Amino acid sequence: MQWYDIVRNSYSIIDLAKQDAMKRILILGAGRSSSSLIHYLLNNRQAYQWHITIADADETLAKEKAAGHVGVEAIKFDVFHEAQRGEEVKKADLVISMLPATFHIHVAMSCLQYGKHLLTASYISDEMRALEKEIKAKNLLFLNECGLDPGLDHMTAMQVIDDLKEKGAELLSFKSYTGGLIAPASDNNPWHYKFTWNPRNVVLAGQGTARFIRNGSYKFIPYHKLFTRVEPITVEGFGNFEGYPNRDSLSYRKVYGLEAIPTMIRGTLRKEGYCSGWNIFVQLGMTDDSYVLENMENMTWRDFINAFLPYSATNDVESKLCKYVDIETDSEDFKKIAWLGLFDRAWVGLHKGTPAQVLQKKLEEKWQLAADDKDMIVMHHQFIYQLEGKLYQKDASLVTLGDDTQQTAMAKTVGLPLAIAAKMVLTGEIREEGVHIPIIRKIYTPILEELKAFGISCHEKETVLQEGVTSKP
Amino acid sequence: MQWYDIVRNSYSIIDLAKQDAMKRILILGAGRSSSSLIHYLLNNRQAYQWHITIADADETLAKEKAAGHVGVEAIKFDVFHEAQRGEEVKKADLVISMLPATFHIHVAMSCLQYGKHLLTASYISDEMRALEKEIKAKNLLFLNECGLDPGLDHMTAMQVIDDLKEKGAELLSFKSYTGGLIAPASDNNPWHYKFTWNPRNVVLAGQGTARFIRNGSYKFIPYHKLFTRVEPITVEGFGNFEGYPNRDSLSYRKVYGLEAIPTMIRGTLRKEGYCSGWNIFVQLGMTDDSYVLENMENMTWRDFINAFLPYSATNDVESKLCKYVDIETDSEDFKKIAWLGLFDRAWVGLHKGTPAQVLQKKLEEKWQLAADDKDMIVMHHQFIYQLEGKLYQKDASLVTLGDDTQQTAMAKTVGLPLAIAAKMVLTGEIREEGVHIPIIRKIYTPILEELKAFGISCHEKETVLQEGVTSKP
Repeated sequence: MQWYDIVRNSYSIIDLAKQDAMKRILILGAGRSSSSLIHYLLNNRQAYQWHITIADADETLAKEKAAGHVGVEAIKFDVFHEAQRGEEVKKADLVISMLPATFHIHVAMSCLQYGKHLLTASYISDEMRALEKEIKAKNLLFLNECGLDPGLDHMTAMQVIDDLKEKGAELLSFKSYTGGLIAPASDNNPWHYKFTWNPRNVVLAGQGTARFIRNGSYKFIPYHKLFTRVEPITVEGFGNFEGYPNRDSLSYRKVYGLEAIPTMIRGTLRKEGYCSGWNIFVQLGMTDDSYVLENMENMTWRDFINAFLPYSATNDVESKLCKYVDIETDSEDFKKIAWLGLFDRAWVGLHKGTPAQVLQKKLEEKWQLAADDKDMIVMHHQFIYQLEGKLYQKDASLVTLGDDTQQTAMAKTVGLPLAIAAKMVLTGEIREEGVHIPIIRKIYTPILEELKAFGISCHEKETVLQEGVTSKP
Repeated sequence: MQWYDIVRNSYSIIDLAKQDAMKRILILGAGRSSSSLIHYLLNNRQAYQWHITIADADETLAKEKAAGHVGVEAIKFDVFHEAQRGEEVKKADLVISMLPATFHIHVAMSCLQYGKHLLTASYISDEMRALEKEIKAKNLLFLNECGLDPGLDHMTAMQVIDDLKEKGAELLSFKSYTGGLIAPASDNNPWHYKFTWNPRNVVLAGQGTARFIRNGSYKFIPYHKLFTRVEPITVEGFGNFEGYPNRDSLSYRKVYGLEAIPTMIRGTLRKEGYCSGWNIFVQLGMTDDSYVLENMENMTWRDFINAFLPYSATNDVESKLCKYVDIETDSEDFKKIAWLGLFDRAWVGLHKGTPAQVLQKKLEEKWQLAADDKDMIVMHHQFIYQLEGKLYQKDASLVTLGDDTQQTAMAKTVGLPLAIAAKMVLTGEIREEGVHIPIIRKIYTPILEELKAFGISCHEKETVLQEGVTSKP
């Protein structure tokens, strides 16, 4: 036995003795996006006397995350195994679910049954909302949308909104865009994009109808027009971006207390030029996930793209594409398609799949992160408001770069708000009950304050658009 | 008592005496599309000794259809009332369901339970297909797709296909389009279209992805491109039309015994110019049925169209539309939109509705049939085949005009094939068992033959495209 094993063991014995006084945290999901969350909790474990259980369907992954730390359990976990789920939740004081969003409701049911707090980084589902009364009756907090987007976007926006309201400002417009992107140093392909997050979500992004309000009028954008209706955004020091609206911007008017605001758009951010390239896939129907292509053994990538183009006895695939989506062969968009190899006579190599799954296969080959690639999170809020006869624009930008393949910008911005919130719930600093999102000042203020130490904060810029304004412009 | 009442009563008494020997037909659904079906069966009732029950949720409608005929029952019928459904089906020898397609399965279950034949004019559902074994075990026939489209399209196509195959021809291409349209004499609006059929189906037509095969390559057209990918079709004496592909042309290759055919497209026919106009609604997102617009009290038709257009501080709705969908203000397409009144500042007059429902309201106002309007069915098949060194094109067109508001072209072409099939099942001329569609020669030949007496038949035209052909072109 080495000296450090002895030390570790002695710590373990001490831990064991303390266990009754200890607060127990159950973390469900040990994937890449949980890295920073787990890292923070492990680092603060001793100071706050936490017992931490890391649970994942992949036990190896859970063990990797726990490695090098004493008094931390790593277990194989199946969320659909009701008995195991109940047993683990029962032992915990607080549960953090990093599982896919559709699984949260199972965790929520167990948390409700055994009277445990629950934290997630996902949108509140209607099913979870329906439990609100029971959750309150048991004095529990189910805090959702406490990651990046949704999460940090709410917190940073509400900080500005609450400050402006306190000053007596009238908010006329609020636009907010967030994107998980590739860091400038690793940005070396014509799409200026790589997969730093779930590829399937990226391929299916935007499907449905985007709904928002602009200058007092409702606006509806069907999916096939979405990537043509983008807004240019410049972030100082990081170049030009473009934002496309999310499916639902309307319901957040009430959430943010901006019921009467004439313009409100929440959206997704990409590097400039991405959307016009992606629009080609949308126009072709290549992101369709509703039907399965079969017998693909004899299909090349060239056949795949040709299946979405009209028949022609004379024109080749390249010219047909250019005509169909109205681009030139020397355009940037054409280069993006060619760079992916979609004109190649190489086999697709799938037996069957939806168009979206086939496209995803190609993108995963070409948009893969290299070992030393770093990711980047960009969030940009733009507020227009009126105060004491002046019309102002306030821009608040948050840019975070990844440290390495574990402590990515995505992992940090998703995991740290959750981790800090978990700490605050266990220390009693957060005492809310019911189903919440972090739009309450006493929740978001300490979280945003602590995040500064991790280099996560907004850069604000304010300009006067017009003086001597007497009424709504 | 009048003399005709006495005659009727005596008929009724005779009928009553014969009732045990009589075959009983149960017709579910007495709407406009059942008129010709019911008319045919009533006319043949005495000759074939049928007892006929007309059942509808609306008893008045059922009674109207039965009026003036003796020995015909008209009843109020609720397909979801299991006991009533069972009781009526039990009494019948054969059931014809003209109910909405999704209701057929309930009728089918009762028919299976009580051992009765079933006829419908709808596509075979997977649920009905799943019953096939039990249906066969009970020696029953569930004949589906026996109306117009599906129905007459199958029969007329299979007649040509079977004839060509018998001659030893090799089929290279088969395209088939059918449309329910307005008769030339009643064609007096810029869309050259009125509702002669279920408006909701017209508004939602084409949603999904059209899949077909063209020159040996699979082709997939997403909904938002569908109305731009039309094929021009001329029918001698009736002018120019255009066809857009149906959702599924692929599965009918097997059904028609054309597994290896390089080109096969089934589609929908409209008058020339309709599709480019309709495409504007699709581009705007106005046919979307997936979300509900609320609080529409203050919405005008102009606001409605503007909700799908980008914001502009300077351009009016008309110019924004032209720019967005790339048309000119003096174009036919612009006139179509203006004629509907979509730029008007009149209230929409709905509290809430999906975009598709709102659009349907406007179209129902403007595309309503006048009392003396007549409808028209146009069906067009185009075959390309090779026989003894020659390449041929064979066109088969079927045009049927409505007689009046009851015996419409739609009612005749949907109802008469069903009625004739019903007669043949009851006389024993059709002895098939299981789940079928009318692609069998001994089913379609007598039906097509009898339809000629109603003026429903194909006009064929054959041309040699190329001589001295030695292999597939």
